[in-house]
Amino acid sequence: MRNKDILQEPVKHIQINGKLSVDELIQQFKNSGSFGAGRLSTACDIYERMVRDKECTIYLALAGAVVPAGMRSLIAKLIRERFIDVLVSTGANMVHDAIEAVGGHHYKGHWIVDDNMLYKQNIYRIYDIFVSEDDFLRLDHRLVDIYDEIAAEKAGKGISSSEFTFELGKRLNDPDSILRAAYESKVPIFLPALRDSEFGYAYWLHASKKDFKDALIVDAFKDVPEIIKMFKHSSRSGMVVIGGGVPRNTVQSAALATRKGMDYAVVITMDRPETGGLSGSTLEESVSWGKVKGGADKIMVIGDAMIVFPIMVASVIERVGAGFKRKPT
Amino acid sequence: MRNKDILQEPVKHIQINGKLSVDELIQQFKNSGSFGAGRLSTACDIYERMVRDKECTIYLALAGAVVPAGMRSLIAKLIRERFIDVLVSTGANMVHDAIEAVGGHHYKGHWIVDDNMLYKQNIYRIYDIFVSEDDFLRLDHRLVDIYDEIAAEKAGKGISSSEFTFELGKRLNDPDSILRAAYESKVPIFLPALRDSEFGYAYWLHASKKDFKDALIVDAFKDVPEIIKMFKHSSRSGMVVIGGGVPRNTVQSAALATRKGMDYAVVITMDRPETGGLSGSTLEESVSWGKVKGGADKIMVIGDAMIVFPIMVASVIERVGAGFKRKPT
Amino acid sequence: MRNKDILQEPVKHIQINGKLSVDELIQQFKNSGSFGAGRLSTACDIYERMVRDKECTIYLALAGAVVPAGMRSLIAKLIRERFIDVLVSTGANMVHDAIEAVGGHHYKGHWIVDDNMLYKQNIYRIYDIFVSEDDFLRLDHRLVDIYDEIAAEKAGKGISSSEFTFELGKRLNDPDSILRAAYESKVPIFLPALRDSEFGYAYWLHASKKDFKDALIVDAFKDVPEIIKMFKHSSRSGMVVIGGGVPRNTVQSAALATRKGMDYAVVITMDRPETGGLSGSTLEESVSWGKVKGGADKIMVIGDAMIVFPIMVASVIERVGAGFKRKPT
Amino acid sequence: MRNKDILQEPVKHIQINGKLSVDELIQQFKNSGSFGAGRLSTACDIYERMVRDKECTIYLALAGAVVPAGMRSLIAKLIRERFIDVLVSTGANMVHDAIEAVGGHHYKGHWIVDDNMLYKQNIYRIYDIFVSEDDFLRLDHRLVDIYDEIAAEKAGKGISSSEFTFELGKRLNDPDSILRAAYESKVPIFLPALRDSEFGYAYWLHASKKDFKDALIVDAFKDVPEIIKMFKHSSRSGMVVIGGGVPRNTVQSAALATRKGMDYAVVITMDRPETGGLSGSTLEESVSWGKVKGGADKIMVIGDAMIVFPIMVASVIERVGAGFKRKPT
Repeated sequence: MRNKDILQEPVKHIQINGKLSVDELIQQFKNSGSFGAGRLSTACDIYERMVRDKECTIYLALAGAVVPAGMRSLIAKLIRERFIDVLVSTGANMVHDAIEAVGGHHYKGHWIVDDNMLYKQNIYRIYDIFVSEDDFLRLDHRLVDIYDEIAAEKAGKGISSSEFTFELGKRLNDPDSILRAAYESKVPIFLPALRDSEFGYAYWLHASKKDFKDALIVDAFKDVPEIIKMFKHSSRSGMVVIGGGVPRNTVQSAALATRKGMDYAVVITMDRPETGGLSGSTLEESVSWGKVKGGADKIMVIGDAMIVFPIMVASVIERVGAGFKRKPT
Repeated sequence: MRNKDILQEPVKHIQINGKLSVDELIQQFKNSGSFGAGRLSTACDIYERMVRDKECTIYLALAGAVVPAGMRSLIAKLIRERFIDVLVSTGANMVHDAIEAVGGHHYKGHWIVDDNMLYKQNIYRIYDIFVSEDDFLRLDHRLVDIYDEIAAEKAGKGISSSEFTFELGKRLNDPDSILRAAYESKVPIFLPALRDSEFGYAYWLHASKKDFKDALIVDAFKDVPEIIKMFKHSSRSGMVVIGGGVPRNTVQSAALATRKGMDYAVVITMDRPETGGLSGSTLEESVSWGKVKGGADKIMVIGDAMIVFPIMVASVIERVGAGFKRKPT
Repeated sequence: MRNKDILQEPVKHIQINGKLSVDELIQQFKNSGSFGAGRLSTACDIYERMVRDKECTIYLALAGAVVPAGMRSLIAKLIRERFIDVLVSTGANMVHDAIEAVGGHHYKGHWIVDDNMLYKQNIYRIYDIFVSEDDFLRLDHRLVDIYDEIAAEKAGKGISSSEFTFELGKRLNDPDSILRAAYESKVPIFLPALRDSEFGYAYWLHASKKDFKDALIVDAFKDVPEIIKMFKHSSRSGMVVIGGGVPRNTVQSAALATRKGMDYAVVITMDRPETGGLSGSTLEESVSWGKVKGGADKIMVIGDAMIVFPIMVASVIERVGAGFKRKPT
Repeated sequence: MRNKDILQEPVKHIQINGKLSVDELIQQFKNSGSFGAGRLSTACDIYERMVRDKECTIYLALAGAVVPAGMRSLIAKLIRERFIDVLVSTGANMVHDAIEAVGGHHYKGHWIVDDNMLYKQNIYRIYDIFVSEDDFLRLDHRLVDIYDEIAAEKAGKGISSSEFTFELGKRLNDPDSILRAAYESKVPIFLPALRDSEFGYAYWLHASKKDFKDALIVDAFKDVPEIIKMFKHSSRSGMVVIGGGVPRNTVQSAALATRKGMDYAVVITMDRPETGGLSGSTLEESVSWGKVKGGADKIMVIGDAMIVFPIMVASVIERVGAGFKRKPT
């Protein structure tokens, strides 16, 4: 390869001369093609391709407190319009969805605050969001009732985490709820670590009432064959990962189990690879496992998901048009 | 408060004039007291207090691939000598423990490598560690046999994740194994997201043999009352967190559920608070929830756990002496 | 303070239902107000206030290779339309501006590449940007001529870094050049570490021709009184910092020297405070010094400046309108 | 390459069974060889090779506030025993060295504090270090006197930054001082951005006394040929970089200017490559420029320098023995 073969495409400098739409700015980022701007524009391109690919099953892996922080409606919308086909989440994100579904709220707060004072006021802090313990208690009450119902209906039969979220969604009458949108749209929500959230505490309340007899049983492994089956039956698969952790690993494990690998991959994270954790691992590393295909369209964007993800979605919605609907795969 | 009341303790500069033991260096860090050096020396002090406190139950929360990376023997030792009383881990760390217990290995590799070549060679990469697919297959075989056995023994009764790890430990005859050490020492290992690892894939192999009938059932919620009960019955509790994620959240949730809060807390992480995730959240934030007591001894060390954790352990072992043993709490 | 006084403003979830302008998305971020989205919307508000404040001198502190990466035209425009009044930069960013001004280019490349091959091809890499050594050589030639000219004109009199950049701008006939725009707009560019760049190497070429006699003299301290004077004579001052380092410190030092402090401050960085460096230090820390006023409008945005800065500028240009011009302060 | 050729060296798990010296722990890290532990042990090996290589000129590039934080004596010692041959620093680190040399102090403080209160108390905060304004004022007085002296002696002749630090060292009678140690040991200290620190403010005090006439002149470019000459005349060169920024760039630029490249390179940083800044750029990227040789011994350690650097030094001092002295190169 010679010098002039490598130096082909000059950086075109970003121009902002007046009002720009989100995607017009992303096109500028594509022209410059450098650092985070280049990565973000590539992420938009890849997500656009996923969305336009009717044969592709799109997995959204969700970690970090983005639902209480303002992404609740957006994710519900993506589910309803089938911009994602499967959601794999931390328990906590769905807990916070449910808090709002039963009338609770998340409040703007601040990261510089006296946490002892908050503790005395029964206010929980999530960086710069405040949540009232009362809203958790209201949710606990509702969950205990729901668990009682499900336990009675299932009569000792274990359900999977996706059946669990389906049963929740069936009982939450809030159109803005992610759980509700998923229930109505038949989009499965997997919670591979659901005990690790208020869902676990509510279980304790529910089960201790009858001395842990006849309690709800969520079969920890039961969603494994469900997600593997979905992956196996798809022509192509793509993942959008917010933050890493168990959700990213769960989605990638399905790709590995079926020996098919992801065709598309977008990861938005602040983690870095050098300390060896899955969350910061590169998509090249994922290729060695077969979790992501060697020839996949793939990119990591290093940044705060609360900034990056909405920009990516806005850019792609602008490209495909507001009326665009994907069919269920 | 006046100027001279605030400016009390001058930084003493670090002196290295010859061979130093690990704790002698940490004492230098304590004298300087600044930035990461100060935080690390505080972490050593807090962990020493935990270890010397016979009434304290010590939780180690373990995320990130530190077991394949070289911490396997160390954690087994901490369990055997009761420097920790409870382990809460990602599934993957216990998978990698089990890989070695059944004769597999982790190999030194490099982070700059052709991942397509590794894929073709059936070598999985974890940053700069390589694992052979063959070693995973060997583990799968063994796990399927073990799952068959447990399923037969339990006959449809769901077990908790800690019963699951106990059953594994019972069947692994490797004294260096974490699972084995925990089994022998009666230290519970909780895996709040155990389906998210090769344990989940092995389930699929196991269960699909009989068309998902009579398969092993791990009750996802069953370890919730177990860990709450332990927390409730302890006079004091302390946590050492490597990396965040589900393990940190699980341990803190037990502290929250019992409304007792941690008395001691050391977190080693590279995550940062501003993006709102649990992994990077400050211990002050944890105070607002009551997960950590307002007056707790607490510190976060920002760094690579493969460097920081062994230093902290070496420093504390030097302080308490090699013969020091904690009694089971 | 009571619970209900603290929990005042619920998070409004982000809505994206069709094409959005950049500022319409930022308004959504403002409504949600959380994590990075909240910080970014606050940054836009603060920069808007700076721009609308005709009595405010706006300093842009520029570190990191953002000029070769695609921000060259944008910064030139901000200078011409007086969205900034003073630029404080690393030497390298102005070197890369000058490379393009004398006909060179920056090329899109990739971060996964054989750097030995690049070395043999005389291609320099800046993450995913490639620059030809030839373009550096062309710049060196031009700089030596310019240095010869300036040295002759100044005849042994030391010039300041801002006089140095003024002399460069005078001689570069490229309207897209930052140096040219600053020269034409009488916006000073300070380079507090100018020897640390190709400007230093060009000096070596220039000065060694005559055995270091009659060489150009840049008086390292001469810009100190210049910037202090500007700061002193401004009613209000604001800074926008990209990345930290010497440029941030230089701007803040002027604020400290005059005992006035910044009235507005926006910092875009990926650095973090815990390791004690200036680049990641919080704006609260800056308050203790008096570099930033206690009551200043201030925010740090944690993110890649190539993403964050253009978004902020696009949002503010949309708010003030394309025809908006600030008067020279 | 076949599977078994790649999988050669199993990870040996870290063993801590009693008191360990720092280097004994590092040897454990070498055996495990993974993530940060592997990188740190490699850094120790490389620094040992540098120190044992009598033909190697060792550059220490110093950014971040490590001198006030506790590394002052350590760096002075490294200079005196010639574990480094050249120091390239931010101005601020030498300012803080001088503060202590003239009787001032740095105090242990805390990162959670009311910065408005500190401001009112005239206390400056550097993360968790406090400095009294009085100590800065005392330094200012001393510096103005010194500047007056130098200006009188040099009578309008510009000096380089290394002559500036030599003149300071000559006048500071504190054996623990870095500036003093360098003066006595004839180790040059380059300050490529010296105006960006209290040295700049002291200049303003000094020069404004006589209306900027007959003031001290530091010729910004004059140290360029000095450092290039040193680099050119060395058989081999190695760099240890703490933190990045201007010091790293200055050292690497000398390597580039001479077209020789570093033979050894250790970088300790928390920065990351993806945002394109020099501070986080990989040493592979440096190879493309020729700043570091393709075949150089090189490693980046991702971590807090206040932890990592003293460990590395302690490990190497243990290896070479307390009596080991390097000869001036």
